[in-house]
Amino acid sequence: MTTEFLKPLEWKDNTLYILNQLKLPEVEEYNPKRTVEEVFHAIRDMELRGAPLIGITAAYGMAIAAQHINSEDHSEFMEEMQKQASYLGESRPTAVNLFWALKRMIAKAMTLGEVSLEEKRKVLLEEAMIIHKEDIAINRAIGENLISLLKEDMTLMTHCNAGSLATSEYGTATAPMYIAKELGWDIKVYANETRPYLQGARLTAYELARGGVDVTLITDNMAGFLMSQGKIDAIITGADRVVANGDTANKIGTMSLAVLAKYFNIPFYVAVPTPTIDLDMETGKEIPIEERGHEEVTSWFGKQIAPKDIKVYNPAFDVTPNDLITAIVTEKGIVYPPFNENLKKLF
Amino acid sequence: MTTEFLKPLEWKDNTLYILNQLKLPEVEEYNPKRTVEEVFHAIRDMELRGAPLIGITAAYGMAIAAQHINSEDHSEFMEEMQKQASYLGESRPTAVNLFWALKRMIAKAMTLGEVSLEEKRKVLLEEAMIIHKEDIAINRAIGENLISLLKEDMTLMTHCNAGSLATSEYGTATAPMYIAKELGWDIKVYANETRPYLQGARLTAYELARGGVDVTLITDNMAGFLMSQGKIDAIITGADRVVANGDTANKIGTMSLAVLAKYFNIPFYVAVPTPTIDLDMETGKEIPIEERGHEEVTSWFGKQIAPKDIKVYNPAFDVTPNDLITAIVTEKGIVYPPFNENLKKLF
Repeated sequence: MTTEFLKPLEWKDNTLYILNQLKLPEVEEYNPKRTVEEVFHAIRDMELRGAPLIGITAAYGMAIAAQHINSEDHSEFMEEMQKQASYLGESRPTAVNLFWALKRMIAKAMTLGEVSLEEKRKVLLEEAMIIHKEDIAINRAIGENLISLLKEDMTLMTHCNAGSLATSEYGTATAPMYIAKELGWDIKVYANETRPYLQGARLTAYELARGGVDVTLITDNMAGFLMSQGKIDAIITGADRVVANGDTANKIGTMSLAVLAKYFNIPFYVAVPTPTIDLDMETGKEIPIEERGHEEVTSWFGKQIAPKDIKVYNPAFDVTPNDLITAIVTEKGIVYPPFNENLKKLF
Repeated sequence: MTTEFLKPLEWKDNTLYILNQLKLPEVEEYNPKRTVEEVFHAIRDMELRGAPLIGITAAYGMAIAAQHINSEDHSEFMEEMQKQASYLGESRPTAVNLFWALKRMIAKAMTLGEVSLEEKRKVLLEEAMIIHKEDIAINRAIGENLISLLKEDMTLMTHCNAGSLATSEYGTATAPMYIAKELGWDIKVYANETRPYLQGARLTAYELARGGVDVTLITDNMAGFLMSQGKIDAIITGADRVVANGDTANKIGTMSLAVLAKYFNIPFYVAVPTPTIDLDMETGKEIPIEERGHEEVTSWFGKQIAPKDIKVYNPAFDVTPNDLITAIVTEKGIVYPPFNENLKKLF
C-alpha cells in the first residue's frame, strides 16, 4: 500500500505550486509561483515552513531565477544569480537550509560556463529536482531506521510538525508512521496540538489523517496524562538542531515531553537528517532561543483570548538534554549514547 | 495595601449580580439574577465556574427562592424550597459544593418553623451571606498558611484558575499571591494558559493583573522550559478532589507540572479548602476522569483550528500521585507526607 502524501509543493507545467499552509486545515490551496519575488514572499510570509522544505523551495526559486535571466554571457548570468540568491536569503535569514540550498544552486551554476543559456536553465531546474528527491530519500531512510525500533501495534506520540509539510513525502518524525501504514501495521498516533502556533493541530493531525494514519489530537498538557496511563509506547519528534553532545533544540514543549517520557519509562527518539547535526557546537547551552511575538499567545485569528496588555513569555524552542534522549535516528543510522562519541562517527 | 478583588458575584440592592465569565477577558459584564431560573441558567451555562463559587451562588439562589414563596404555612414553604433545591441541583449535577450549599440552606430553612415569612426570607439571605463570608475566610487562611512557605522575591507558577473567579476574593492557589502583594513583597507569577478552555489566560492572568500582581502568561508547554532555566521557585495549584492518600485530581496538565517540578527539584503545593478532601476515597485510581467534547480542542470562537473530523481525546482532569506533592495546604494548616496519616488529623 502506498501513501497519497499531502504535497507541500509541486513542480508542474513549468510552474512551482506551493500549498498555502496558512490556510490549513480549512482549505487546501495551491498557488503558482512564477517569479523569484513570489517565491520570496511565500517563504517570508510562511505559506510554507520547515527547514528542509524552505531549502527545497529556495532551490526551485533559483531555477526560476535562471529562467528570467536573458544574458548568454556567463559572468552576467552569475552576477544576476548571485543577486537573486542574496535576495532569497533575506526571506528567512535564520534558516540554515535556505543558505545551504542557495549555495548549492550557485555552485552548480558556476560549473555551467561552457553551456548555452537554455542548457543552464535546464540543468538548474534538474538540480532543484535532485535536491527535492534527495530529501525524499533521506526521509524514507530515517523512517526505515526508526521503524526497526518499533512494533506493529504501538501507539506513538509526536509534537509540532516534522512531517510531509515540513519536508517532502515521509517527513522525518512522521516517516515511520507512514511506513507503518504502508506495511499494514496497526499503529496509532497522538499528535500534540503544539501551542502557540498549533502546528500539531493544523498540520500534523491534518496530514496524518489525510495520509490514512490513525491519529488522535490532544492539547499539549494532556501528553503526560496519556503517558501515565501507559498508553504511549514511544515518542518521536524532529529537531531544529542537534549539537555535538546530543543536546537537541526543537519546538517548545519537546523537552518537557522528554522529562515525562523518562519518568514514565517511555523511549524518546529524535528523527533528524544529518545536516541538522551541528558538531561545531559543543552543548545545548550555546543554542540561542528565539523569542516570538505576544500576539501568538494572546489572540487567535483576531479573537482576544487573554487580557490585551498582559505580559507574555513566548520562547519558540527549548533544548532537550542528551540524557533524556534514547536514540537519535538519521538517514545514515541510529545513534545511541554516548552521543558525544557516536554522533561523530556519522560523518 | 488591600486588594481590589475582581468579584465573581455581588449582592446589591436586594439583587444578585453575577460576572459573566464567558465574556472575560474582553468585557466585565455583571448581570442581575432576580429569579431561581436565572440563577439556574447562570450556573448551567457556566457564566460562573469553580466549586466554591457554584456553592455560594446556589445558596443565594435559595435565598431568592424564599423571596418568591408567598405562603405563611411552613410545610408549604418547605415543600417549595425542596422543589427549588432539586431544580438548582440539576444545573451542575457533578458539583459537590452545589449540593452541600443546597443542603445547608434547606437545613437552615427547616429551623424556621416558628418565624414569619418575612423573617424566614431575611434569615435565609443572611445564611447565604454567611456561606459567602466563610469562603472568604477559608481562602484568606489558606493564603496565610501558604505564604509561610514562601519568600519575598519568589517566582511562582499556577495552572488553570483557582482564584477569585473560582471562589471569592483571595481564591485558593492565588491567595498567597494576593497576600504577598498586600505585604509589599516582590513576587512574580507565571500563569499557564490551560488548554483547552484557557482558564489561565482568560481568568487567572486577567484577575491577577487586575489585582496588581506581576503576572506573565505562557502556554502550557513552556512551563517545563521555565523550570529548566531555574526561573520557578514554587508551583501552586488548586484541586478538584484530594483523596485519603493525598492523590489529587485537578485540571488536565497538573500532573505533568508535578513530574517536571520533581525533576527540576521545585516544591509543588496543592491549595485546598478541607471540604475538597475526600477521605472516603482511598487512592486516586478511583477518581473518575470526565471526558469533554471535541469542539473545545478543534475550534475556537467558531474558527476551525484542526481538521473537522479529526479524532480528539479531551480528558478534563488528571490525577497527581501523592509522591509528587510537597505539601497540601488547607485553611486548617499545612499537611506534609505521609498524607495517608496526616490528612486524617485535619478532621
